[in-house]
Amino acid sequence: MPLPEKSLIAEIRKMAESAGKRAGRSLPRGVAGEGARATQVITGIGDDCAVLRPGLGSDLLVTTDFSLEAVHFRREWHPAESVGHRCLARGLSDIAAMGGEPVAAFLSLALPRDLEQAWVREFMRGLLRLAKKYGVVLAGGDTAESPGGILADIVVIGSVPKGKAVMRSGVRAGDRIYVTGELGGSAAAIAQMRAGRDGNSRNYPRHFCPEPRVGVGRVLREKGWAMAMIDLSDGLSTDLAHICEESGVGAEIELERIPRARVGKPARKVDLGLALHGGEDYELLFTAPAGRRVPLRIGGVAVTCIGRMVRGSARVMARDAEGRRSEVKAQGWEHFGR
Amino acid sequence: MPLPEKSLIAEIRKMAESAGKRAGRSLPRGVAGEGARATQVITGIGDDCAVLRPGLGSDLLVTTDFSLEAVHFRREWHPAESVGHRCLARGLSDIAAMGGEPVAAFLSLALPRDLEQAWVREFMRGLLRLAKKYGVVLAGGDTAESPGGILADIVVIGSVPKGKAVMRSGVRAGDRIYVTGELGGSAAAIAQMRAGRDGNSRNYPRHFCPEPRVGVGRVLREKGWAMAMIDLSDGLSTDLAHICEESGVGAEIELERIPRARVGKPARKVDLGLALHGGEDYELLFTAPAGRRVPLRIGGVAVTCIGRMVRGSARVMARDAEGRRSEVKAQGWEHFGR
Repeated sequence: MPLPEKSLIAEIRKMAESAGKRAGRSLPRGVAGEGARATQVITGIGDDCAVLRPGLGSDLLVTTDFSLEAVHFRREWHPAESVGHRCLARGLSDIAAMGGEPVAAFLSLALPRDLEQAWVREFMRGLLRLAKKYGVVLAGGDTAESPGGILADIVVIGSVPKGKAVMRSGVRAGDRIYVTGELGGSAAAIAQMRAGRDGNSRNYPRHFCPEPRVGVGRVLREKGWAMAMIDLSDGLSTDLAHICEESGVGAEIELERIPRARVGKPARKVDLGLALHGGEDYELLFTAPAGRRVPLRIGGVAVTCIGRMVRGSARVMARDAEGRRSEVKAQGWEHFGR
Repeated sequence: MPLPEKSLIAEIRKMAESAGKRAGRSLPRGVAGEGARATQVITGIGDDCAVLRPGLGSDLLVTTDFSLEAVHFRREWHPAESVGHRCLARGLSDIAAMGGEPVAAFLSLALPRDLEQAWVREFMRGLLRLAKKYGVVLAGGDTAESPGGILADIVVIGSVPKGKAVMRSGVRAGDRIYVTGELGGSAAAIAQMRAGRDGNSRNYPRHFCPEPRVGVGRVLREKGWAMAMIDLSDGLSTDLAHICEESGVGAEIELERIPRARVGKPARKVDLGLALHGGEDYELLFTAPAGRRVPLRIGGVAVTCIGRMVRGSARVMARDAEGRRSEVKAQGWEHFGR
């Protein structure tokens, strides 16, 4: 059984404050952001609301993401620490996709009555380790008894200079399409585990411990390289379709150019289908005008041009090695899909 | 079955934008807050994050609250519209308890596969009607398939002049303790329904459609009347104990003075136990120095002095009509209580 609510909150608060301190950041006066414009957490866990003081000239970014047992993770597949890490990574990745700096996180956590407190501790450890790495303060949330399964909802608040957030829209025909890192690595782990094989977490780091591309996103925004940006959470085919819909512009990608993840031991490249449709890679997809010189690596992360935006209907087309064109149907994750 | 995710989000987005417009507020440039210092929602539903532009000289308030089926509501007891209303009211009440102005809400909503879309529509209607009333923009969230039961998590972001948020701490011995409205009305409805009787929603408005005390909270902050404040969500005995713990000061309440709700038809006053321990009234509890003249009504809502803060250990004591003193044990709602 988890601790009674009051003790549970007290323990989480203690862990959060200790993680904040180890990050060289004192609560309740933790500071995050960019130099003099830093956005501060004035009051964290323990009152009706958290109080944040926005940095001068900053816009605030807000994102929320569920992590539900049997939907987003399975206890028999995912170690508790990985579930905590992935829970926060989902939110950080959304902040990265706007070119922002994460500041504070809020965790709503509902636990079934028969869950051991050890699971909760490992979950929090994974979440807070990632929070510390990115200077994020866990500043509040909610706890409840769950009617079934572990239910988490993470809110991440970020900061970006006023008017500088990189949106999904703003794309023009002719712009080049880029992705960071490699794709399909997360879906490959799921495929392994679905087939009853061991998805050893060391062989599939992109699935169990995805690193949100916060630094890359910030550089892309600062340098003005990204015109439009989205994080690849649902899968390339689905997320690129979002960009097309928001902008009313089509996309044409070259299948040969899609950077396919190397997974397993010995390492092998994932199938094209996984790279094209597999979700939860938490890489960034962005567009830049054709003439702009975008580097091949940013902060150690590969950046690959995979195609371009084209005039015409807002759909995604693919070209194979022989130059044959075909439409790519969004096949990434959708809830309540029929 | 609910709509497929993409259509579901599209419908919620349309409803939210329409509610925003009817509130005399255009999206994506909705404005909320106080005059020139207004905090704006720059981008709402549809991108990786929402973008908020904080008003000059504003602090931001953030609160999150679960509404889980079988924990916070029951489909057989609560009409969908009431569930939506209560979901948002929980968050608005937290903003009220800081003396803040609500600006934007974010809804994470997980739905079981066999739920009719009509339920979702009614739920959204209840939520958005309340949002419109308080000028709150539904600016984002998440959707997912639920592994069991309807799961909602609401985030409300509010605005308060810099450094002016009213906290739970800051109480001194001698301060008077006040509550708004009447207590126990919500718990009385639960008691009715538990006993298998009809908790007709018209006879129990405080349970089915609680009005968050946003206006009262703002006046209390503006006038400097409230030194410390909390909303009564867990029950008077539990929430007052929170104030004592955060301040390290004791409380002494006079049982005769507690304003007991009148419920049912014909109307009768609820038992003292419900007023003392019953949760979910979403009234405000605040403290003010002894000499301060606090009005008996604020914006049409009764304000009642029920006792005072006292030196000594941080516990809650009660005095009955005969002057006998006894300790009040927190008996409000706690998850995972043993």
